[in-house]
Amino acid sequence: MYPESFKNLLESFKMLPGIGERTAERLAFFLINQDLEKTDFFSNSIKDAKTKIIKCSICNNITESEVCNICSSKDRNNDILCVVEDFKNIFLFEKTGSFNGKYHVINSLISPLEGIDPEDIGLEKLIDRIKQEGFIEVIIAVKSSVEGETTALYIKKILEALNIKVTRIASGIPIGTDIEYLDALTLERALNDRREIE
Amino acid sequence: MYPESFKNLLESFKMLPGIGERTAERLAFFLINQDLEKTDFFSNSIKDAKTKIIKCSICNNITESEVCNICSSKDRNNDILCVVEDFKNIFLFEKTGSFNGKYHVINSLISPLEGIDPEDIGLEKLIDRIKQEGFIEVIIAVKSSVEGETTALYIKKILEALNIKVTRIASGIPIGTDIEYLDALTLERALNDRREIE
Repeated sequence: MYPESFKNLLESFKMLPGIGERTAERLAFFLINQDLEKTDFFSNSIKDAKTKIIKCSICNNITESEVCNICSSKDRNNDILCVVEDFKNIFLFEKTGSFNGKYHVINSLISPLEGIDPEDIGLEKLIDRIKQEGFIEVIIAVKSSVEGETTALYIKKILEALNIKVTRIASGIPIGTDIEYLDALTLERALNDRREIE
Repeated sequence: MYPESFKNLLESFKMLPGIGERTAERLAFFLINQDLEKTDFFSNSIKDAKTKIIKCSICNNITESEVCNICSSKDRNNDILCVVEDFKNIFLFEKTGSFNGKYHVINSLISPLEGIDPEDIGLEKLIDRIKQEGFIEVIIAVKSSVEGETTALYIKKILEALNIKVTRIASGIPIGTDIEYLDALTLERALNDRREIE
């Protein structure tokens, strides 16, 4: 019924999370009615984002240069490191404006059930970095779940031998809820309420 | 805060209707985590849709060839023509499966207040086509509004001299609501209940 290229555009929109048939149609109809300048911008921005964005060689954040702008900044507090499980969370913490330390993104969380071991999530790289950069405090800012607790405790165990304070962002995170769904205020409260892992 | 190319991707999503800052972020994060194959498909589908899709030279429907597949079909009823105000509506009528005639898309509706005259919306082309193809009935399937009524009456006035039956899709359309928001059932009812313009 639809022209072939329009069908492909529909398929593209339908691959996005939360976009069904009806919404995909509305977006596709909207887009083909836009100027070529706008559609080219859209099309190129997808290509560019995919080809130019790489992972920071230090912290795994997304960046267009080898080292991200947070790792290379001279204005950040080099004593404190915040460990997150997804680069998306860095931007959420940055939006709160209440953290000025450095970040480190681990690939996932330890999950013996799913066979995800410490080495699978890049903890060795994290520990090496902590030793090398001499952080005084490491904040574990991952999901409140069995996997999150396991990962936090594992990191705590290694770091306490090095006399590094290990903290965990505080309550306020509903159990099992992904950090990306929290509002900035709750995140800020959770940051301020962080407590040492016993 | 975000890399430049990521910001552009965000801007792209934000140009779409109903997509705000938060949703744009979720979609953009999702997209850069996809395989290059998928993002290329997305990017190319936008370019292709914009460059390959043209308007049918007969009815103004979207098509990739000079004449759309409805105009060139041998299985349609050539006695009846359905006039719509947007090519999107053709696909909505097609989904009801209850109309087998031809379509014609006018660019807009007559609106003396906004200075949109009959010649601005391509009515001359429509009338010429109706005379040439010898339709027996013309269904006016445009929005129920002052502009919609004005446009319908204008077409009726010209065609009654030619002894062509002019009908209007029936009640079921809330006044002022765009046809694209209706479900197929309501549209089908409205088609079947069409009445001659007095």
